[in-house]
Amino acid sequence: MADSFSCMYSLPYFSMMMKSFVFVCSLLLLSFVSFAQTEDSVFIRRIADEILINSKAYSNLHTLTKQIGGRLAGSPGMVKAEQWGQRALRAAGADTVWLQQCMVPHWVRGGKDEATAITGNSKKTLDVVALGNSVGTAKNGITAAVVEVRDFDDLEKKKDQVKDKIVFYNYPFNPTFIRTFQAYSDAVKYRGQGPSRAAKYGAKAVIIRSMSHGANNFPHTGSTKYTDSTLQIPAVAVGLQDADWLSNVLKSQAVSATVKTAGHFLPDTIGHNIIGEIKGSQFPNEYITVGGHLDSWDVNEGAHDDGTGVVQTIEVMRALQALGYQPKHTIRFVLFANEENGLRGGTKYAEEAKEKGEHHIFALESDNGGFTPRGFSLVANAAQSQKIKGWRDLLEPYGTYEFLTGAGSDVTPLNSTQGVPVGELLPDSQRYFDLHHARNDVFEAVDKRELELGAVNMAGLIYLIDKYGL
Amino acid sequence: MADSFSCMYSLPYFSMMMKSFVFVCSLLLLSFVSFAQTEDSVFIRRIADEILINSKAYSNLHTLTKQIGGRLAGSPGMVKAEQWGQRALRAAGADTVWLQQCMVPHWVRGGKDEATAITGNSKKTLDVVALGNSVGTAKNGITAAVVEVRDFDDLEKKKDQVKDKIVFYNYPFNPTFIRTFQAYSDAVKYRGQGPSRAAKYGAKAVIIRSMSHGANNFPHTGSTKYTDSTLQIPAVAVGLQDADWLSNVLKSQAVSATVKTAGHFLPDTIGHNIIGEIKGSQFPNEYITVGGHLDSWDVNEGAHDDGTGVVQTIEVMRALQALGYQPKHTIRFVLFANEENGLRGGTKYAEEAKEKGEHHIFALESDNGGFTPRGFSLVANAAQSQKIKGWRDLLEPYGTYEFLTGAGSDVTPLNSTQGVPVGELLPDSQRYFDLHHARNDVFEAVDKRELELGAVNMAGLIYLIDKYGL
Repeated sequence: MADSFSCMYSLPYFSMMMKSFVFVCSLLLLSFVSFAQTEDSVFIRRIADEILINSKAYSNLHTLTKQIGGRLAGSPGMVKAEQWGQRALRAAGADTVWLQQCMVPHWVRGGKDEATAITGNSKKTLDVVALGNSVGTAKNGITAAVVEVRDFDDLEKKKDQVKDKIVFYNYPFNPTFIRTFQAYSDAVKYRGQGPSRAAKYGAKAVIIRSMSHGANNFPHTGSTKYTDSTLQIPAVAVGLQDADWLSNVLKSQAVSATVKTAGHFLPDTIGHNIIGEIKGSQFPNEYITVGGHLDSWDVNEGAHDDGTGVVQTIEVMRALQALGYQPKHTIRFVLFANEENGLRGGTKYAEEAKEKGEHHIFALESDNGGFTPRGFSLVANAAQSQKIKGWRDLLEPYGTYEFLTGAGSDVTPLNSTQGVPVGELLPDSQRYFDLHHARNDVFEAVDKRELELGAVNMAGLIYLIDKYGL
Repeated sequence: MADSFSCMYSLPYFSMMMKSFVFVCSLLLLSFVSFAQTEDSVFIRRIADEILINSKAYSNLHTLTKQIGGRLAGSPGMVKAEQWGQRALRAAGADTVWLQQCMVPHWVRGGKDEATAITGNSKKTLDVVALGNSVGTAKNGITAAVVEVRDFDDLEKKKDQVKDKIVFYNYPFNPTFIRTFQAYSDAVKYRGQGPSRAAKYGAKAVIIRSMSHGANNFPHTGSTKYTDSTLQIPAVAVGLQDADWLSNVLKSQAVSATVKTAGHFLPDTIGHNIIGEIKGSQFPNEYITVGGHLDSWDVNEGAHDDGTGVVQTIEVMRALQALGYQPKHTIRFVLFANEENGLRGGTKYAEEAKEKGEHHIFALESDNGGFTPRGFSLVANAAQSQKIKGWRDLLEPYGTYEFLTGAGSDVTPLNSTQGVPVGELLPDSQRYFDLHHARNDVFEAVDKRELELGAVNMAGLIYLIDKYGL
């Protein structure tokens, strides 16, 4: 009977038992996952409530933009910003706050940037701003005929016509890219390499169409990079309406221009990453980094670039501390020293992490503006990315639904030197290049709730990574 | 042999054949779906390119806001707007444009709205605006002690204290609602019912905390509705900073206030829905409607409310016509006459559709602001909703990923009277109540690309509904 039973029932019985076992296990797993999901969704809801009710992000941004304003590396504004940053991190509840010293470039604008277009007997003032790192003109400026080029191919075709001329790069943002950062990636080489490539053919200066598709005429600064130290020529960006005007006039007549700028480098000086830390309870020697960059261009208040990332970083700490959250890992909140024209802060942070043999498990930056959040970009291996994407449903109520590839400039060195998975908050990009590096990147362009929701999503992701590892 | 073959092979053979058949069918279906998806994604990409390169939405909005401005039903601005709307629909390529007449309410503000708070010997001017449809005060205003109530429960508790007083409703927007329209739904009853409920207990006027969580002090108007024609008392909205000030002062001392307004109704007058139509090639008697409302409050330029919906509606037509798209169904582009203080336009449109026995298959409105799109809200049956949600992947590249329940006010009567499935564009809501019905709802608050991407998503959805039906 036993045998027969066994013979008759063993396989089906085993199968049935297995099914039951699997069923029970699945139920248990499901309950566990479901319990964990519920616990997590409850905690992330608490984070959101804390930030949406009690956030200091907007008032911190007001102080940083209105009381300090522009804060290029090496400037008096940066010194004030560093002092403010330490106070703000302490007020938000850091266990410790310290400065990580690094040498930073010290470029100064040196005066007012000016350009006048001359056609026949008439003159028109162009709204321009010298590119960061640009050399200046002589006091009376540079006056020369303007040669328009559409792109580098066009420059090659006209290379015999640009000697002693002012080259006008008029490469537009492509409006059909849905994400504006694609248009920026496509066009920014003219800002970065344009001056050196024109200088190679004897040009005396360059005017570059601003990196924007905004509907206004504000010129947009940003770094240029000379590839040859002996061939440095002054470079300015021009507002889009003036660029269109110039291009249109050049279709029918010769135009010369006078460009005056006074940009120059002073010797490198001392800057600092400002770091606030909450010690981990289980893995104090494993680090999660959250950051934004404290420096900004000098022509504006550095509101969206990157005041918002700075105050969101501080807000993530404040909210976690206010909720009494005890992180398992040590979390570092870093206000980086020099994203705009040297990346010395992010580079230093990665170098020192390597020297000290620190184990970093993840680093997140916010440097795409303080607009309404849509998700995160990541540079991580497949398993890490999959794990993060698995939390989508927990974050979607707060705006996160898409995950792209990419990471913030300041956290990228951690990845490139030590393989640390890194990422960046992904706010909606449509408004960013209306004001990026231009006069209108001011406090008033930031919406309080959009700023706060960015911090909610950042805090939610950091909580999940701290809880579950990566 | 045949039998034996049949006996031996029939079931497995049939099963195998069926499997092959199902497999081949699946492949065919998959290819068809995949081909259709590809064809659709290519066409929607063409719509996006057409709009992002050649859109007239932003320049149309400039004309509507800057040359016409505020356009409350019955106002001279509305007359100009109707004329402009007809021209704009014709320019965008309508087969026919006509006016659908309806009677509209004719409320006028009648003068400047003023309020002064008096505490002891000091006075403070409050930034107020009369609610739409409100009666005015006498010329010298109403002066009375102010009684603050938090909500209707609080009013009931204080009902014996409000006789001959000014009731100050200070119910705040709840910041923890992620979608700001939830906060609006939660709070707007104080604007709608507050005056009548206070009048019932003998109050002489009401001051209402504005429907906003903006960081500014602009007061926000909007309709109030008297429930008893014999108990109509003047009502103003006050800016949030002034509301907080008033509430704070009332904690420690008595405050009286003088409120002066001059709002009143003139006799109903003639208004029009402005309708542009493209005739359907296969189902000319089946209608798809796209619309926004042409009227706006008088205190601003009606940019986000609802200039953006109007120019997006026109842009959807322009883009489809520019691409040579031949719709199967007749598509109507409707600029509704009177959303703000009567809904007479939307009501008339549904009434006439019913009278004429028109077969409407879908109606879409854009009236949530011209911000970056996130999806659509729908009022439709399960199968219709499921069909629309099935197109998510086609629209996600342009911002659509979420589908909520709801629809625009002007298209809702088609649903409530005839069961037509209706919907609304769902832009990001965070900035909307910073400016809704307030002085700062102006052209400059609209981002060109956000506006255009809204039109891209609307046009994509209309194309899919036209192609596949609903």
